[in-house]
Amino acid sequence: MKKLVNSPATVLQDALRGVAVAHPELTVDFDSRIVLSSAPRDGRVALISGGGSGHEPLHSGFVGEGMLSAACVGEIFTSPTPDQMLAAATQTDSGGGVLFIVKNYTGDVLNFDMAREFAEEQGIRVESVVVADDVAVQDSTWTAGRRGVGTTVIVEKVAGAAAAEGRTLSQVKAIAEKVADNGRSMGVALTSCTVPAVGKPSFDLPEDEMEIGVGIHGEPGRKRVPLASAHDIAEEIVESITSDYDFTGAPVIALLTGLGGTPLIELYATYGEIADALSAREIRVARSLVGDYVTSLDMAGCSLTLVRADDEILRLWDAPVNTSAVRW
Amino acid sequence: MKKLVNSPATVLQDALRGVAVAHPELTVDFDSRIVLSSAPRDGRVALISGGGSGHEPLHSGFVGEGMLSAACVGEIFTSPTPDQMLAAATQTDSGGGVLFIVKNYTGDVLNFDMAREFAEEQGIRVESVVVADDVAVQDSTWTAGRRGVGTTVIVEKVAGAAAAEGRTLSQVKAIAEKVADNGRSMGVALTSCTVPAVGKPSFDLPEDEMEIGVGIHGEPGRKRVPLASAHDIAEEIVESITSDYDFTGAPVIALLTGLGGTPLIELYATYGEIADALSAREIRVARSLVGDYVTSLDMAGCSLTLVRADDEILRLWDAPVNTSAVRW
Repeated sequence: MKKLVNSPATVLQDALRGVAVAHPELTVDFDSRIVLSSAPRDGRVALISGGGSGHEPLHSGFVGEGMLSAACVGEIFTSPTPDQMLAAATQTDSGGGVLFIVKNYTGDVLNFDMAREFAEEQGIRVESVVVADDVAVQDSTWTAGRRGVGTTVIVEKVAGAAAAEGRTLSQVKAIAEKVADNGRSMGVALTSCTVPAVGKPSFDLPEDEMEIGVGIHGEPGRKRVPLASAHDIAEEIVESITSDYDFTGAPVIALLTGLGGTPLIELYATYGEIADALSAREIRVARSLVGDYVTSLDMAGCSLTLVRADDEILRLWDAPVNTSAVRW
Repeated sequence: MKKLVNSPATVLQDALRGVAVAHPELTVDFDSRIVLSSAPRDGRVALISGGGSGHEPLHSGFVGEGMLSAACVGEIFTSPTPDQMLAAATQTDSGGGVLFIVKNYTGDVLNFDMAREFAEEQGIRVESVVVADDVAVQDSTWTAGRRGVGTTVIVEKVAGAAAAEGRTLSQVKAIAEKVADNGRSMGVALTSCTVPAVGKPSFDLPEDEMEIGVGIHGEPGRKRVPLASAHDIAEEIVESITSDYDFTGAPVIALLTGLGGTPLIELYATYGEIADALSAREIRVARSLVGDYVTSLDMAGCSLTLVRADDEILRLWDAPVNTSAVRW
């Protein structure tokens, strides 16, 4: 294992220190392991997300004006604790209440639920939205129901813009749920990732095979198949997503994320094929993002997310945002 | 070799197609393989850069308002041709002249020189600035003198802001040279990269070693040493750069780029150590960027760039910019 770290035990704390010095506009609470926005709160709904680390820039890279108020950072591929989420809620609530944005993994869901109880006992209003957009498999290693992946980024951006406009907690929750309900994703892995504390690849994938529908922790997907061309991979992913949900007849937001180990030139080559596959199905992409947004450490591969949008969602998507990883 | 491509022969053309559909605000000239900004020109100096591909987002990701007018895209790790550069010059000059921003590799320098002659024959005023900031080695596989790496990003941003302000060609050239002259870089590789058309790693690096001072095409650096901690790597890189140039007593712009295969969590962990090493030397970082900006396909590792700035350079750095990879 070749990693640019001091030791597997300290990588998270070391990375938080790097985030703090690289981004003086953010506040890092090292005790609670939360990354906080310095955007003014004044009664606005606070948006909190979080999860295991190793998926950067998700979620800490999305903290800032117009997106998340705070991100709770767990150990690599490990849910953050209810204490972290409670600390984030107490530090960001300014009377407007808190929306938890939760990816559907059992530990995350349980811990955010517990944190919600604790926060409500302290008089903080909390709502939750759970993202479960990965069409690959119904249940998986750490998930009952579908896994939550790339749609989370779009939920965080759109709900963040709604919160910045001063909408109420129930309104922000409603738009977050609308995005979550209308988003679908699927990915493919060409290689495994290596968790620093484990020191060897999370799974074995022969040199001539790929995993269709892989999870972002290396959980099994739908099938192992021979390594295929970008064209065939794009076709398979798009067919899986669009046979699960009808994206025709409305503008679509498309996110193609690399999984960490795939060069941008390959991602763009794949995105060209995805655009063709969508166009052939009369699906109209209104907005797109291509790059590393939801990663799995050093895994080679990509994951496509489509969200059915409307004028309101597009307007919130286009609203100004200022985070380290999403900014316009 | 596991790559998300159709074939090694088409990866560049396929990627340009992806860039075109993902970024409708850009114009891709597929015949000339140049990516063009749609920002208004009206007499402003046009900034043109380019080089071999495989280093994305450099340079095509930096095309747009406030940065490059055009990027000439060569095959992977191969210089673009004078014809491409001439096409970029004729398509972007609006009377203010053209500045070529050239990384110091023999092919790039020769071809940009030739393109300059051709353009001048057509009545286009052209100036060039050559970036040669890599302190690792004096000459290298494809370079007489030092190699050009991360300082290029800062030259493109600062000169782009100067051009957007309407400065003259000689003024834009002067500020570009000032940044280039006062920037230094060095990198480290933990793994090789794999060029699709070659199909195997560009060099062998044992599991327990790293290459200090590696080039962005995998060219040899200063030495092979046992794999070290992020702390020790940061110390070695910072010592190499700061013993070459005195960065004390002025604000510094710091860029830590991943080389393509290193997860963001490791980059941040390393950046924390770099910040310590700089602080111990009384070097004051005024602005920083951490992420993948100058990559070497799927190489694991990082490269640090420091530029000695002043109030004017910082103001130009902070000016609005709207490209796919640098935006604020």
